[in-house]
This record gives sequence, structure tokens and C-alpha cells, in this order.
Amino acid sequence: MANTAKIGIIGAGSAQFSAGIVRDICVNKGIEGSQVCFMDVDAGRLDKIYALARKITDELGVKLEFKKTRNLEEAVTGMDFVLNTAQVGGHAWTEAQREMGEKHGYYRGTNFASIPQMLFFLEVAKLTESLSPKAWLIQSANPVFEGCTLMTRETKANVIGLCHGHYGYHDIAKVLGLPLEEVSANMIGFNHWIWMTEFRYRGKDAYPLIDEWIKTKAEKYWKTRKPAFGDNQMSRAAVQQYQIYGLFPIGDTPRFGAWWQNNSFKSKGKYFGTPLGGFDSEIGWKQYLDAMAAAVVKIEKAVDDPAIKATDIFEPVQSGEQIVPIINSMLNDKPAVYQVNIPNRGGIIHGFPEDLVIECRGLVSGGGISGLMENPLPASIISGVMIPRRAEAESIIYAAKECSYNAFLALILQDRRTREFEQAEAFLNEWLNDSRNIYVKKHLKK
Amino acid sequence: MANTAKIGIIGAGSAQFSAGIVRDICVNKGIEGSQVCFMDVDAGRLDKIYALARKITDELGVKLEFKKTRNLEEAVTGMDFVLNTAQVGGHAWTEAQREMGEKHGYYRGTNFASIPQMLFFLEVAKLTESLSPKAWLIQSANPVFEGCTLMTRETKANVIGLCHGHYGYHDIAKVLGLPLEEVSANMIGFNHWIWMTEFRYRGKDAYPLIDEWIKTKAEKYWKTRKPAFGDNQMSRAAVQQYQIYGLFPIGDTPRFGAWWQNNSFKSKGKYFGTPLGGFDSEIGWKQYLDAMAAAVVKIEKAVDDPAIKATDIFEPVQSGEQIVPIINSMLNDKPAVYQVNIPNRGGIIHGFPEDLVIECRGLVSGGGISGLMENPLPASIISGVMIPRRAEAESIIYAAKECSYNAFLALILQDRRTREFEQAEAFLNEWLNDSRNIYVKKHLKK
Repeated sequence: MANTAKIGIIGAGSAQFSAGIVRDICVNKGIEGSQVCFMDVDAGRLDKIYALARKITDELGVKLEFKKTRNLEEAVTGMDFVLNTAQVGGHAWTEAQREMGEKHGYYRGTNFASIPQMLFFLEVAKLTESLSPKAWLIQSANPVFEGCTLMTRETKANVIGLCHGHYGYHDIAKVLGLPLEEVSANMIGFNHWIWMTEFRYRGKDAYPLIDEWIKTKAEKYWKTRKPAFGDNQMSRAAVQQYQIYGLFPIGDTPRFGAWWQNNSFKSKGKYFGTPLGGFDSEIGWKQYLDAMAAAVVKIEKAVDDPAIKATDIFEPVQSGEQIVPIINSMLNDKPAVYQVNIPNRGGIIHGFPEDLVIECRGLVSGGGISGLMENPLPASIISGVMIPRRAEAESIIYAAKECSYNAFLALILQDRRTREFEQAEAFLNEWLNDSRNIYVKKHLKK
Repeated sequence: MANTAKIGIIGAGSAQFSAGIVRDICVNKGIEGSQVCFMDVDAGRLDKIYALARKITDELGVKLEFKKTRNLEEAVTGMDFVLNTAQVGGHAWTEAQREMGEKHGYYRGTNFASIPQMLFFLEVAKLTESLSPKAWLIQSANPVFEGCTLMTRETKANVIGLCHGHYGYHDIAKVLGLPLEEVSANMIGFNHWIWMTEFRYRGKDAYPLIDEWIKTKAEKYWKTRKPAFGDNQMSRAAVQQYQIYGLFPIGDTPRFGAWWQNNSFKSKGKYFGTPLGGFDSEIGWKQYLDAMAAAVVKIEKAVDDPAIKATDIFEPVQSGEQIVPIINSMLNDKPAVYQVNIPNRGGIIHGFPEDLVIECRGLVSGGGISGLMENPLPASIISGVMIPRRAEAESIIYAAKECSYNAFLALILQDRRTREFEQAEAFLNEWLNDSRNIYVKKHLKK
């Protein structure tokens, strides 16, 4: 007989996460009997996800207890697990901030969109700390790296960040034509900034197979494929990053690893493939937003049409997300290794602060999470990408923590696309004064 | 009776350092009887400085033994102190590298001029390590920060970096109208990147006096003064850096502390004062080079004209440089506190690696150097300027250590003025292939 848990899901209406998580909850026998509290500020979305969960459990005959609420405190009170998937202001506010950036010379926006998110994360972490002090706070909304570091430094909440980007090595195996079950890999770094330290095929180093592919097959692959928006793992972008810095960037990393690959739509096309220009171009991102909207419609269809079985639309099998399996490992003491984002305690990644949240492997069990120590990263990766990315992160974390004009100014002045002081001020003033910037206004130091 | 030492001075013909050091050596009774070996690749300059030293000692009746050599090993063999003041290729190569940078869109040049310097530093340190393993290697040529860190990490030489920039607080006292003898200050960070953590007048915090000056007198000061090229301490640039980051930048720091103050001659004029545009503008730097040329002429005059007393031209009093006083403190066990650049052992500046060379106060005695522990710097300084500057330094240090195309590429790609990948490649290829780039060609990894 498995243990049961109380699980609060914040931002449960989230198109990106909700259906997958609901399905994973319903199919994982380890958490049967648990109570799940959905929370979202959007009543319509909340009703749909609640209805979807009930319909799937009914169809599967699984025992789970669901609640729904628009009250944050309720979703964080007396929980064993709090899952934060919320995007403050939704895609609308994110896109508005992006447009604001573009207006001032920041193509595809700035890292300021992280600030409202992190202010909200901190509210959730503080509530969790006081209302469910023993709970695990699972952070899956971005920015995982900066957000988890901030929460870890400022609260006593047990924070763990989760992402699925590390599965990117599956795409490498696929393109190289290697059966996935005979491939193993390890990739560490910061979330969305992970570099493959080990890649084996049948127990032997398989980096030479990548080198061979680059030499003999890459050009043809780039010229003939029609990449989908999520298909960046074997792009020219990723290969160039590997060639300069010495380790392959994995998952979301190729999207962000090199600024010059992303400074214009033309550059994106060159490095990520035309006509799409990769995940984050005007076109790629539009396709992503369309896919999110389609996901909402799919949920509505599964819920609203009594003639349709929800489990026909959402096949009742565990997804690739680690969230529910990790809850099961913790709840029922089933030790397993996952890819986690946890504080760098003990210097798992050598040379970085112990209170910086890194991404690495961790053994998860009833005892919590034990990070797996890693060999030192090569100096080319440390000085070329890790230290610079940490520097950027620290400015974002400080800006969110301090929430003052000067902290924000220091942050935008560090953006390499800022060309003049006045440009930085103009962007910052518009962003600060926007009526939708609710969390910043609430916390801004005068 | 004082102890005597063997002192090797590399780049002894250096216009910036030589006359001052020679004079300090001659007037400091603590090192009388010592042997000084001047080394320079420029035979003409070497002869002049040797002649100047002999003439001054003759005039003062001081006992010192001088040698001169063009052979590096000779100047590093069997020494107690090795002083490195050399600029590889002289001002000519530095200026050529600057022009090369400007041609590719890097106004006033890139940080690549540090690379040949650091490769030479490493040769000197390795020679010192094997030929004078107990010697102190005093580094006064730039880049002190990156160069001393590289030598410390790669050799066992006892490296100490010295600079006079910390005296910048004297200018603050002067402009505020405070008698220097009643003012005390502390400024720490990295060389050319130091921030004033303490400023007292008659024992009380005097930062409010700076704030009052900014409020009531600064505008008039900026509008009415005619600044000399070295006169940046109370510039608009320094004050703005203080206002954003929270501590006053000292000495050379205001020159480099904010990129947007230095991205064009116009910006330099705005922040450092017109028509000069500060120390590092086209005009300011020309004045500096002219002053260096004048210093050479002054030495020649003092040496060549038998009717002139050298001590009439070079007044025989200790200069502001700490080099010879520090040698005296070590040699004769005369403990005193100096501003030094030493490894961050024990975390003198909290949160930075122990093998990074920082600038702080150190007690110097016969026992060597003991750094003075410092209170943590404010978070605004840590995230706003210290972590980003360290990130830049690590890329420079890695590039010099690795000396490979990719390491150099990673470095120039980090320059915020690099707008396209092709621009980085074009600059790099020109720099690598220049026939004057001797040390890089010698060490370049294929």
C-alpha cells in the first residue's frame, strides 16, 4: 500500500504543464489516494483542468481527491508537495515585455521578464516556508536557475527545480542512428545551460561518433531537413558552440548558448535553419504559442464533449516529465536518479558558490535528494560559458531581491545590446511604469 | 646595519617606472649596499638608466652596486627581488594593437593587448621559480590583475602586484578641502577595479561629505575645471559609478568602471570632461604618451650633460611608489601596511576564489605578506561590478594560459562591442597573423 500525499499545484491552468501533469498523476499508482489541490487565478482554466482530472480518474477508476481554488495560500497550506508552474500575467504579459524590449533595441526582449516571475516565486516560497515547512517546493516555471537560487538563498523552503531539457541527448542518439537504450549521457551546468560531460554508446565514449557525423553528415542534414520549432539539438548553432567551447550543449542550451547566433532573424536562420530560425525566432515562437493555444483547446475538447473519452485524447501513460515520478520516489522511498536543480552544496560543480542552484544528477528517495558529485568541467567551459552565465544570473537575482531602480539599471546596463546609457534608462522607465508590472510595483524600493 | 639584497629589474628602460625607481633605490637607506641588475632589450634605454643610477649614487655618496644586461635569465638568476616593469614591444606594439582593434569596431582597442604581456609574465615567473625560487616577484607592469593571477596559478613564484592607484582618495580629500593627514580610507577589489569601503575624516565616516559635495558643488566643479589627463577621480564618471553601484571607485577604477562612459569620444567628453575626454581618450592618451617621451628626454638630459646634477632634475626624495619601501620592509623586517595585489587566500574578499589575485591591504614584514581580512562588499558591488569583472578576467587568463584559436575566439566574442561572429574572426585573424605578435606566435597551440 503506497503512501498518500497532499499536492498543491500553482498555475494549474498552465497550458504547457497541466494536462501532462494531470495525466501523470492519474497513471502513477504510487500516489493513488493522494489529494491534489489545483490553484490558478484564471477561473475558466482552473475549472477545465479540474474537470479533466476528474474525467480521467473516472475513466481509469483511479482514486484521487481533487480540489480547486483561486487562493494561493490555500494551495500552499498543509501540503507535502507544492508545484509552481505559474507564469505571472500569462503569455500576454511576457509578450508585452518582449515588445517593450524590441522597441528599445533589444531583439526578442530582455531578461527583465524574469523579474516579475521571481518576485512571485519568492512569495510562494515564503508562504510554503511558513504554511508547509516540510513540503518540497517543485519549481518548473522559468526562470528555474535564477528563481531557485533566489528562493534557496532567501527562504528555508526545500526547493527543487525540474526541467526536461536534459533529454536533448535523445535527439543526438536519434540523429546519429544509435538505439537509445544503448546510449548513456551526463550533462551538467545551470538550467537551460547544460553541457554534455559524458556520452557513451555500448559503454564506450561516443563523442567521436558526433565528430564523425559533423565531418561527414552535418552539412547534408542542415541543408535537407525541415526543422520543427523544438528541433535545435543538432543545429548548426549547437555544433558551433561545441566546437568553440568543447562540450555539446544539451536541450534548451543551444537556444541560448551563443548571443551572435541570436542577434537577428537572419542569424537565427543561419544557425538554427530557415525559414523557422529556431525555437525563439518570431516564427518559431509563434508556432510555440499556437501549440500552447491548441493544448488549451484539446483540454476543452476532452472535458466538454461527453461523447469523447478523455483518455482517448490523453493517452494514459507516464509522460517524459520527472515531476510525478520524483514525488513517488520521495513519498514511497523508491530511490532513483533524476536530473535535478539543487544548491551546489559541497561544490558538486567545482568553483561555484554552494548557494547557487545548479543542474546535475541527484538520487531521490524518502531521505530527500543527494546530488551526485561531478568531475571538474573543462576550463574552456568554465571560463567560456559557466562563469559569464553565472555573472548574468547574479545580476538578475540581485535585481529581483533588491527590487530597486539602481539594481534594475545595473542589470539592463549589463545587457550587451545596451549601446547607450539613455537607452537603458528609457527601457527601464517604460517597464517600471507599465500598469501590468504588478509584482514589481508592489515590491519596488523607493 | 641594514641587510642587502640582489634586485633584478626587468624592463628597466621603461619610461614610466625607471627614473622613479632608481631614485627611490638611491634614497632608501634600508637597501644601501644592495646589488641592482638592470635588464632591458633596448640597449640605448638600458645604458641611460644605468648611467642615471650611477650618477645619482655618486652625487649622493650612496653605496649601491649596479649591473646591466640584455639577457633575461641573468636578471632573474640568484635574486632576492625581481621587479617586472616591462611592456612587451613597448608603446609601439600597444598602439598598433589598439589601431587594429579600432579598425574592426573596437574603439580604443581590445583587451587582447594583455595577452602578449601575460605570456611574457609567465616566462619571467617560470624563470624566477627555477633560478631564484625564494625571490619575491614584484609585478608592476599591467595587466596586474590578470597577470598576477595567471602567474600565481601556473607557477610557485612568490608574486606580488603593486600599483599606486589607491592614492586616488588623496584627490577626493583635496577636492573636498580636507587635510590629507586627517583623512583615512580603505579600498579593495581587483587592481584598477577598487571600491572605497571606508572613508573617514577625523575618525568619522566622511562619505556624507562626498554626498554633500555632489549635491552642492559637483556641477560647478565639472563646469569650471580644466582637467589634466590623470585627473579622473572626481569626474562625473566616478560619481555616476558611485551612485549606481554604491561605493566610490578609486584611482584607475573610474577610467574603466562603466563601459557606456567610454564607448565614444563624445561619451568620454561628457563623463570625464571636455576637451580631453579623460585619461584614455585619443587626446588624453596622446598627452600621456607625450609625457612618457618627455620622461625619456629628461633622463637623457640628466645623464648626458655633465654640467647638470642628476639630483637637481630628480629630487632625491622617496616617490609615492610602494616598491622600494616594500623591499625595505621585507629585507629588514620593518612591518608596515601597504596596498598589495595578492591571492585571495582565506577569502579576504568573500565569495571569490582563493587563487584569484585581489587588491587589498597587507602587512609586509620579514615574514612576507599577510593580507588583512575585509568585511563583505555590498551586494550591489558584488553583482554589479565584481562578478562581471572577474568573468572578464577569467576569459583573459584562460586565453593567455591556453593560447589557442578557440580560447582567443571565446575572448573576443565576450567583448560587448562584438556585433557579429565574422567581426570577431576578422579581428582575431589579423591580430594572430601580425608579425609583431611574437609571444603569441611562440606559444600558440595548433
